[in-house]
Amino acid sequence: MGEAENLFLVIMAGGSGTRFWPKSTARKPKQLLSFGKRDGESGKAESESPSLLGMTLARFDGIVPRDQRLIVTTKLLGDAVAGQAAGATVLQEPQGRNTAPCIYWAAREIAKRDPRGVMLVMPADHYIAFPERFRETVRQAARWAATHDDLVALGVKPARPETGYGYLRIAPGVLGEKGCRKVEAFVEKPALEKAREFVSSGRYLWNGGMFLWRAEVILAAFDRHMPEMEKAWTQAQGEIGEAYPRMTATSIDYGVMEKADNVVSFPLDCGWDDVGSWTSLEGLADALGARHEAGTVVGGEALSIDASGNIVDVPGKVAALLGVKDLIIVQQGEVLLVADKNRAQDIKLIVEQVKLQKPHLA
Amino acid sequence: MGEAENLFLVIMAGGSGTRFWPKSTARKPKQLLSFGKRDGESGKAESESPSLLGMTLARFDGIVPRDQRLIVTTKLLGDAVAGQAAGATVLQEPQGRNTAPCIYWAAREIAKRDPRGVMLVMPADHYIAFPERFRETVRQAARWAATHDDLVALGVKPARPETGYGYLRIAPGVLGEKGCRKVEAFVEKPALEKAREFVSSGRYLWNGGMFLWRAEVILAAFDRHMPEMEKAWTQAQGEIGEAYPRMTATSIDYGVMEKADNVVSFPLDCGWDDVGSWTSLEGLADALGARHEAGTVVGGEALSIDASGNIVDVPGKVAALLGVKDLIIVQQGEVLLVADKNRAQDIKLIVEQVKLQKPHLA
Repeated sequence: MGEAENLFLVIMAGGSGTRFWPKSTARKPKQLLSFGKRDGESGKAESESPSLLGMTLARFDGIVPRDQRLIVTTKLLGDAVAGQAAGATVLQEPQGRNTAPCIYWAAREIAKRDPRGVMLVMPADHYIAFPERFRETVRQAARWAATHDDLVALGVKPARPETGYGYLRIAPGVLGEKGCRKVEAFVEKPALEKAREFVSSGRYLWNGGMFLWRAEVILAAFDRHMPEMEKAWTQAQGEIGEAYPRMTATSIDYGVMEKADNVVSFPLDCGWDDVGSWTSLEGLADALGARHEAGTVVGGEALSIDASGNIVDVPGKVAALLGVKDLIIVQQGEVLLVADKNRAQDIKLIVEQVKLQKPHLA
Repeated sequence: MGEAENLFLVIMAGGSGTRFWPKSTARKPKQLLSFGKRDGESGKAESESPSLLGMTLARFDGIVPRDQRLIVTTKLLGDAVAGQAAGATVLQEPQGRNTAPCIYWAAREIAKRDPRGVMLVMPADHYIAFPERFRETVRQAARWAATHDDLVALGVKPARPETGYGYLRIAPGVLGEKGCRKVEAFVEKPALEKAREFVSSGRYLWNGGMFLWRAEVILAAFDRHMPEMEKAWTQAQGEIGEAYPRMTATSIDYGVMEKADNVVSFPLDCGWDDVGSWTSLEGLADALGARHEAGTVVGGEALSIDASGNIVDVPGKVAALLGVKDLIIVQQGEVLLVADKNRAQDIKLIVEQVKLQKPHLA
């Protein structure tokens, strides 16, 4: 199938976070960043490569018509997201309320146009190395969702015993072609030992937060598992500013998916990465054209002597690295971050300091 | 004595070097840099503090009239030096020929005005923590030079067994007040064991390249030990462009001082430092107002968590340091240097690479 009349895309782009600080800030979170190929040949600043949001949108060209795309984001990010929307409709949440209200709202918007429309929910800030494989799975899953009253989760084949993601436990029996299976449970982020068991068992997939369902199917699931959502919507007469504060601020996983008994999963094997931190870029070095003897250079250029394992993002600049290993080196505007790579998870602590002492830089 | 009619200052400011790259470049060597107090209070970029050359000149205010000051530098640096000369006459060498031709030329210039003038030769790029003590020693030494046919070297009391400097071996007997002694020998940079012996013996001073003599006395020493200089000068009829290429390119130490038997030394105890490398700034941290929990911050500001022993110079920027130790972190224009502090002596290797790959940055 090419572009499907009844396929609607919902991109959740309201996220914020500090793990890519100083490249990311409150006004420019991860989904608006580009981790582009650098122009190492000419020495010029790298050309503007698309942001993760832009790449997410582009991935659906030929599958979802532009006027059937919604991007849900926050007021703070509204203008920046609109500038990259490429024809998609931007919905600005009155405030961040986690994913359940966001998906409820989007489902209502789609149901107005086509209650039987298939709604494809995607985060805005993931990376996919093999988009054609991704699209093929999406096509299969969309067909399933169009013809079954199921909630479909795309589950990522685990590449390692990751403790930072939730997992889907899948039933043994295959339901249809392409490995579609019943989801038995949504499992929270496991400890390492558990994660190892999950991976070796073959019964678990990573929960990447990618879902497909018909608008009417997810709305029925809301009515069953979160009836307060419909009540809030009706009381507010669809006025989102009124409805949003009344909705329960929780995740779709917790509010609906974990409770529903009609969840199935298609396995996704497409080089998916959630680009969760500076260190995650090492795994994407080849895809980003960022491999360097000094480590991973995603922005700017590097010269080095006896340097290795570093992660460097210095757009428009030249990093000269001498005898340094396993550092994160990021220059952005007024800020220069130099961090031990093994302390990447503590960048948030530095950002807390910055918020207090230099709030304009956070 | 206040300003002395017959005291002339000669500042040698032709040096180049790579040890402070990227702050220093071919067109802006160490003597033109400022290692200023940062303005940590307001968060503004540091105000323009004087360069080492500017500090060197200022040190002689009240001792040497401005119209009795010469700065000898290269053509390449002529304009930049002139901009900081503060009334001194700038002599531009046709090419760098080490210190002997430079001093010969300056002596000739001074002898034209006053053959009995005392000539005080100073490098442009040293730091002195206690300038009043320095001035007191200079006054004593100038008096000696005015009244004795000696070559006077100011010898720095050694603070550590430094292997990077030459030493003066001094005779036991004191010749006059203030510890003036005969210099028995100029000793080249020693190995560490030797340097330790030197320091514990009490018979050695660092050779800081600071000299005083009457113009006629040093010219007589040149005539005796380097007679080719006078020949070159006379043949060129004092035209420096003609004379310079004929002069022997060697140091005053090697060409004259080591051979002369009329050398005396005054000991200098004034917190002298030759500011030889990024790491030398650690010893000057207090004087520069640069002490920080993350190390020594000579330019820009720093925020840190679990960082120590770093040397940071990021003018106008904020360095956020997380879990990093003993790094040199310097941002200058297009360049960001991040080096292991223990590899400071290898910065020249990085500069060699830069010269090949990015010559405009070297």
